[in-house]
Amino acid sequence: MFQGKNRQWLLARRPEGSVGPEDFRRNETEIPEPGEGEVLVRNQYLSCDPTQRGWMARDTYMPMVPIGDVMRAIAGGEVVRSRDGRFAPGQRVQGFFGWQDYAVAKPGDALPIVPIPDGFPIPTAMSALGLTGLTAYFGLLDVGQAKAGETVVVSGAAGATGSTVGQIAKIKGCRVVGIAGGPEKCRYLTQELGFDAAIDYKRENLITALRTHCPNGIDVYFDNVGGTILDCALVFLALHGRVVICGAISTYNDETQAAGPKNYLRLLIRRGRMEGFLVLDYYHRAAEAIAALAGWLREGKLKDRVDIVEGFDNAPAALARLFTGENRGKQLVKIAE
Amino acid sequence: MFQGKNRQWLLARRPEGSVGPEDFRRNETEIPEPGEGEVLVRNQYLSCDPTQRGWMARDTYMPMVPIGDVMRAIAGGEVVRSRDGRFAPGQRVQGFFGWQDYAVAKPGDALPIVPIPDGFPIPTAMSALGLTGLTAYFGLLDVGQAKAGETVVVSGAAGATGSTVGQIAKIKGCRVVGIAGGPEKCRYLTQELGFDAAIDYKRENLITALRTHCPNGIDVYFDNVGGTILDCALVFLALHGRVVICGAISTYNDETQAAGPKNYLRLLIRRGRMEGFLVLDYYHRAAEAIAALAGWLREGKLKDRVDIVEGFDNAPAALARLFTGENRGKQLVKIAE
Repeated sequence: MFQGKNRQWLLARRPEGSVGPEDFRRNETEIPEPGEGEVLVRNQYLSCDPTQRGWMARDTYMPMVPIGDVMRAIAGGEVVRSRDGRFAPGQRVQGFFGWQDYAVAKPGDALPIVPIPDGFPIPTAMSALGLTGLTAYFGLLDVGQAKAGETVVVSGAAGATGSTVGQIAKIKGCRVVGIAGGPEKCRYLTQELGFDAAIDYKRENLITALRTHCPNGIDVYFDNVGGTILDCALVFLALHGRVVICGAISTYNDETQAAGPKNYLRLLIRRGRMEGFLVLDYYHRAAEAIAALAGWLREGKLKDRVDIVEGFDNAPAALARLFTGENRGKQLVKIAE
Repeated sequence: MFQGKNRQWLLARRPEGSVGPEDFRRNETEIPEPGEGEVLVRNQYLSCDPTQRGWMARDTYMPMVPIGDVMRAIAGGEVVRSRDGRFAPGQRVQGFFGWQDYAVAKPGDALPIVPIPDGFPIPTAMSALGLTGLTAYFGLLDVGQAKAGETVVVSGAAGATGSTVGQIAKIKGCRVVGIAGGPEKCRYLTQELGFDAAIDYKRENLITALRTHCPNGIDVYFDNVGGTILDCALVFLALHGRVVICGAISTYNDETQAAGPKNYLRLLIRRGRMEGFLVLDYYHRAAEAIAALAGWLREGKLKDRVDIVEGFDNAPAALARLFTGENRGKQLVKIAE
C-alpha cells in the first residue's frame, strides 16, 4: 500500500558492558499492512531510555527483546493508515512502536497507543508529557509521597526524568537538591530550573555536600542511578523517609552484578521505605498526570529539555550517550519530518 | 528504705566483633529511692534482644549506651514503691528497667511502664505479649500488610520474633515458610508451630529451596537476619511484594560494614517495597496487639517459647547466645523469684 522501505534497527546480540552500535543491526523491509483493529504509524521520533539496556540483556519486568527483533522503544509519529475506528490518519500518537520507520500497532499492547495532546510538539509529548513526565509525576507524588516543606533529593538530576522530578517537587513546595555530574549540569539545575542546590558528584564529597544541603535530612530520595550515590543518600534519610527506586543507570552497563546499598539498615533506624515502581502500572491514571504536566508547561513552571539527534542511523549512538552522561535532557532521534 | 544491694551490669566498652562478658562490668549500688512521680521496680527477669548489640556500639534509633552506664534492657518485675498514683506496690510491670535488680522508672520514658496482663506469667508478658509479640504483630500486619492466601517467608524463624511472625501469618491464612539453622529448629517450625515448610539455611541451597517452597513468589519477606538470606529472598519477590526489615542479626557482630542487598533492584522489577520499622513507634496501639495476642495464646493458636537462663551473673553470656543461635525462643535471664 505504502511505497518505500521500512528501515529498522534489530537487536544483534546481548550487550556486554557498554551498549553501542555493534549491538544492533540495520535492516530494511517492506512497509507492513495493518490488520483488522490495527493501525499503521509512521514514526518521526525514536526514544532512547536507560531501561532499554535492560530489555536488551535479560528478562526484567518485560521479556528481553529476542535477538533479531526490532529494538523495542517508545516512538512518536503519525497514524498513516487505520483499521481501528478510534484512530484516523493524520492523528499524532506515541507508543511502543520500536526503532523503525513504520510500525503496526494495536490498542491493548503493553503501552497503549497514546494520542499526543493538541498544541504540543511530538518531542514534548514524548518527554514531559510522555513516559518521562509520568515517571517523574507518579514516582515523586505517589510512590514518594513528597509534601510541601519536605526535602527532596534527586540523582541523575539533569537527566530527563530527574530534572522533571526536581521541578515538580519545587512546584509542590519542597526543598530540592539535585545530584548531577559536572558544573554545567549543576548550574543548569540551580540557575535555570530553580533547584535549591546542586551537588556535582564528580567533584564534591557527597557526604559533606548532602550534610550541608539537607540539614533536616532527606524526606524523599528519588534514585535514578544506584551505586555509591544511593548509599550516601541513605545516610541522611529523615525519619519516615522514602527512597524511590526509579532506576540505577550507574549499574546497567556492568555485567558483573553491582554491590547493593550497604547502608540499607538506615531504613530500620529511620523507619524508612525503599520502593521500586514502573510507570506502566500507572497508565490508567495517565490523564491526571498529563493534565497537570501540560498545565505547568503552559504556565512556564515546568521546563522541558529535549536532546535531539538527527538521523535514523544514529539511534544506537544516541542510546549510548545516556550512559556517558552526554545527553542534555530527554534523548530522542529524529528520523523524519 | 529498702535494705540490700542493687546489682548492676554496666557497659564496660564498645564491643568489637562478638559481644561477650568482657564488654560488661559488674557493679553494686544502694537501692535507689524513687522521686516524685517515679516508681521503684524490682526486676525478676532481664531481657536479651539483638538490638542491644546496636545500643552498645553506636547511636542508632536511640543514643548508644554511655560507657559506665547500666546496660539498657527491657526487664520485668514488680513495683515495690510508687510515687505515681497509677502504680501500686505489688503490680507487675515491664519497661526499660536495665540490667539491674532495682530500677527507678517514670511513665513517659522511651518505653512506658507497661502493666503485665492478669493471668499471664512475666516471661510470657515479656515475650509473646511484650516487645517480641508486638514487633511480630505490627511488622507482619501493618508494615508487611500480609493477607490470607499470600506467601510469607520469615528468617530467624525459630527465634522469638520469627516464630511469632510465622504463627500469626498462619492464623491469618497465609502460606508460611521459615528459614532457620539446623534440622532441630526446622522440625520445630513445621511439626510444632504448623509452618508449611522450613528451610535449613546451613544445609540447603536457599535459591533451590525458596523456588520449591514459594512457587508463586514471596508476598511478604520478614527479615530478621540480613546478609545472603535477604539477597536470596529478593530474587523471589512477588509482584508488589513487601520486605519488612526488622533486623539483621547476621551483620551485628561484624564491625566492618556488611555488604548491602545486591538484588535490591528486584524492588524495581517487581514493584516491591522494603521498609524498616521499630515497634516503639507502635506503642500507642499496644492494647490492640496485646488483646489479639492474648486471645491467640488462650486459644492455643499461638505458642510462646521462652529460653530462661538462671542467675544475674549470666546475663552477658545469655546475650551472646542470640548471636550463635543457641537460644530457643525468647532469651530471658531470671534474677529473682
